Amino acid sequence: MAMAFQTLAASRVRVGPLLPAAAAAAPTPSSVAAPRHHPRRRFSAIVAVAGAAAAPAAAPAEFDFDSYMTERAEMVNRALDAAIPAGAPPAALHEAMRYTLLAGGKRVRPALCLAACGVVGGREEWALAPAAAAEMVHTMSLVHDDLPCMDDDDLRRGKPTCHVVYGEAIAVLTGDALLSLAFHHVASPGSYPPDVDPEKHPARVVRATFELARCIGSEGLVAGQVVDLANTGASEVVPLERLEYIHLHKTAALLEASVVMGAIMGGGTDEQIERLRKYARSIGLLFQVVDDILDVTKSSEELGKTAGKDLASDKATYPKLLGLEKSREFAEKLLSDAKEQLAGFDKEKAAPLLHLAYYIAHRQN
Amino acid sequence: MAMAFQTLAASRVRVGPLLPAAAAAAPTPSSVAAPRHHPRRRFSAIVAVAGAAAAPAAAPAEFDFDSYMTERAEMVNRALDAAIPAGAPPAALHEAMRYTLLAGGKRVRPALCLAACGVVGGREEWALAPAAAAEMVHTMSLVHDDLPCMDDDDLRRGKPTCHVVYGEAIAVLTGDALLSLAFHHVASPGSYPPDVDPEKHPARVVRATFELARCIGSEGLVAGQVVDLANTGASEVVPLERLEYIHLHKTAALLEASVVMGAIMGGGTDEQIERLRKYARSIGLLFQVVDDILDVTKSSEELGKTAGKDLASDKATYPKLLGLEKSREFAEKLLSDAKEQLAGFDKEKAAPLLHLAYYIAHRQN
Repeated sequence: MAMAFQTLAASRVRVGPLLPAAAAAAPTPSSVAAPRHHPRRRFSAIVAVAGAAAAPAAAPAEFDFDSYMTERAEMVNRALDAAIPAGAPPAALHEAMRYTLLAGGKRVRPALCLAACGVVGGREEWALAPAAAAEMVHTMSLVHDDLPCMDDDDLRRGKPTCHVVYGEAIAVLTGDALLSLAFHHVASPGSYPPDVDPEKHPARVVRATFELARCIGSEGLVAGQVVDLANTGASEVVPLERLEYIHLHKTAALLEASVVMGAIMGGGTDEQIERLRKYARSIGLLFQVVDDILDVTKSSEELGKTAGKDLASDKATYPKLLGLEKSREFAEKLLSDAKEQLAGFDKEKAAPLLHLAYYIAHRQN
Repeated sequence: MAMAFQTLAASRVRVGPLLPAAAAAAPTPSSVAAPRHHPRRRFSAIVAVAGAAAAPAAAPAEFDFDSYMTERAEMVNRALDAAIPAGAPPAALHEAMRYTLLAGGKRVRPALCLAACGVVGGREEWALAPAAAAEMVHTMSLVHDDLPCMDDDDLRRGKPTCHVVYGEAIAVLTGDALLSLAFHHVASPGSYPPDVDPEKHPARVVRATFELARCIGSEGLVAGQVVDLANTGASEVVPLERLEYIHLHKTAALLEASVVMGAIMGGGTDEQIERLRKYARSIGLLFQVVDDILDVTKSSEELGKTAGKDLASDKATYPKLLGLEKSREFAEKLLSDAKEQLAGFDKEKAAPLLHLAYYIAHRQN
């Protein structure tokens, strides 16, 4: 599949190694000093490739992004693991839910939710339930999008997709069960620590539920997938505006909900919540622009999913419409917009969201 | 399809006309005086067929069940219509959502929700959002269950099923969008009248959300469908216990959530809520026993869906395991259990739930 794509890709857009080459061009001292996954080095790499003159503002040296992400992922994985009883009947369903939900994944959405709770002064544990719910919704959308009647994908997070292992019926039902579990989890009193404000907590949960629900259906993930499917294989050239619609709905909407839910649970003011919403929209679009770039520059093995799929299936992507250079410049602009929204927050508390933006800009898979 | 089934059915269980013959045996004076859809007449019919000696307690003569149901259905249909913008993008998705959701249907679940709100002393409008949400969830489960990879049904509510009209991909996505819309609708402040108690309302919404979410996934509809699919075509005889598991999950769970949500929104006490939960479990199972009976005694035209489907596909049903007579006796027992739970409530306020139980027992489609 990857081979077939590379031939196809070469005939359509200028494809070359993106970040490996870029890393060589990055300022050596900072990249040597930086930890393995340090955002600064990789972001510098993108900037260098895009030909931008100014280096990004240095992230606070004392923030350990790798540890932050590892700890958050562990916290969320524990919550996800506890939410689905292993072996309980119906065993096939629970097994399929655990197979898809606990398959790894970077837990970017939960981390955004927790970090947004923290930036407005909340304890991250107050937002753990919506954080886990965001991952359930994300996994649901992957399971359904991978179905034979949709994107027909057989590899996801480095493993065979749900319908390949359990059949189509169970895959449809697994998605449904994960979707409802997300709301069950958010609404369950048992999902929260005892120190939530009993007066304010229910109203925050209702508001978070509203944000989560809105980002899924005809204003979010599903709308994006419908328009995406309608474009696939269409003979007309997809205009940039429609591509942005797809990405804002398929990707940015859930990232936005994750951030906004965190800010709500943390007790953020309306003004703070709206600023964080703008931050989230920028990194949401950024996430997809980078995804599109990775699809044409990485192998299936590196991505843990079928590479070149977008191009092979004639899907509209940023590299296809803008070319790789312009796509990278656009990514840089979105990162800069996102950073701007964090300016008014306490620097130390905003560090996780700042580093998450960097991470989304330069991730390798 | 119906012809093929009748041949098949005749060779397996004693099949005869159920309620038309029964109606003739019902006490003539009350059946003449009753309105066209009056519960008493039809319930008497079931009792007569089942050979029970005692007639059911007469329902209050002044309660106009037909008008009650018509008014509730109109109220719910207005809410459902307003919840999905016609023509708004993505048009194909909204069209498919409206096609399935506004296709008619008896709106039994919303009526149960509204009636339960009323029986504990609430204004029915306080429960309109969860009532509409219950119908969205019900429709979602029909759309997904009808898919080719599941029950492969092409007729529903007298119309071609969603995937027949819009294709499988849109059908999967329509279900997802309806499911998330249900939670969006329950969580939206705009779904409630201004006279809800601002102090107590958010906690009630959270509790209702919890009940709705729980009845869908691996503790509800989805679990029932998974076990049902696993049994279909299996060579072993499905034990009665497993059949009850399927029905309690596939059907009773959402009826239970509908009733309990109504009681919560109406401000019912925990004791009232638990009594109504028991009522709902009885009528939930009753609903499916009657559905099973109708499947073997009615034509596709009368049902508005493919008749004989359960038998043709070798699905376990009550008539298949117990025979028609015993199935009718079981239905009668469940109705009696449900009525018992209503005994402690104000008679006038309990009239809608009482008549809904009768209606579920003797409905014709």
